[in-house]
Amino acid sequence: MDRIPILKLGRFLLVTVQVDMHDRLAMNLQEDLTSRIVETHARGVLIDISALDVVDSFIGRMLGNIASMSRILDADTVVVGMRPAVAITLVELGLSLPGVRTALNVDKGMELLLTTLDHEQPGEVAELADAEASGERY
Amino acid sequence: MDRIPILKLGRFLLVTVQVDMHDRLAMNLQEDLTSRIVETHARGVLIDISALDVVDSFIGRMLGNIASMSRILDADTVVVGMRPAVAITLVELGLSLPGVRTALNVDKGMELLLTTLDHEQPGEVAELADAEASGERY
Repeated sequence: MDRIPILKLGRFLLVTVQVDMHDRLAMNLQEDLTSRIVETHARGVLIDISALDVVDSFIGRMLGNIASMSRILDADTVVVGMRPAVAITLVELGLSLPGVRTALNVDKGMELLLTTLDHEQPGEVAELADAEASGERY
Repeated sequence: MDRIPILKLGRFLLVTVQVDMHDRLAMNLQEDLTSRIVETHARGVLIDISALDVVDSFIGRMLGNIASMSRILDADTVVVGMRPAVAITLVELGLSLPGVRTALNVDKGMELLLTTLDHEQPGEVAELADAEASGERY
């Protein structure tokens, strides 16, 4: 496999990382994700890493890069589903994932993204929430 | 990897199949998914196969089994993201995925699940939709 699928959930994009990241895969993910943000006008990116046993400095840097790229494209990034052991290892390695927001699971991550949007544009969110629920988007 | 992550999205569960299925992985997925349906009281299961180039009779049967198991546990199953080439191959192989509902993408699949729930319990859905959007669930 050389591409990780990116799923559109209402106004957000969801990426589930299930396999070990190598250079090519990470590059493709960055390219695909930035294209999809522009294409779908996504306002947020959720990256689920619940399947990962280990997050090393390479993946840590990649997550930071994705967050920065998305921010420039006006989309927030939330990393969700981190295992307790991964959090321990990250801190022990001195990696604190600067600039990356985290949430316990996809539901909480989506809540966080909606809250952020809410603070930005109070008017837009009720509409967004309705459309999200009914699935009437795009 | 011997387990595929199962993500909870409001009242639904989402499974993204990214790797080739082998016996052990399929068995684990069935076990994990049925446990999660019971545990989270999920009313629907979305299975994304957009990463799969090929769906053979083994995967076809597994999708059918998952749909049947979920149905018994009162959850609907929708397979989403099937590639055009996969649909062609399936029909050529004489596999029409009986009992499995499909949708173009996750958004459409979720819409389908919400519509089904809507027909079942008109009262519950507005509430569900609201909670889904605001993320205030469980």
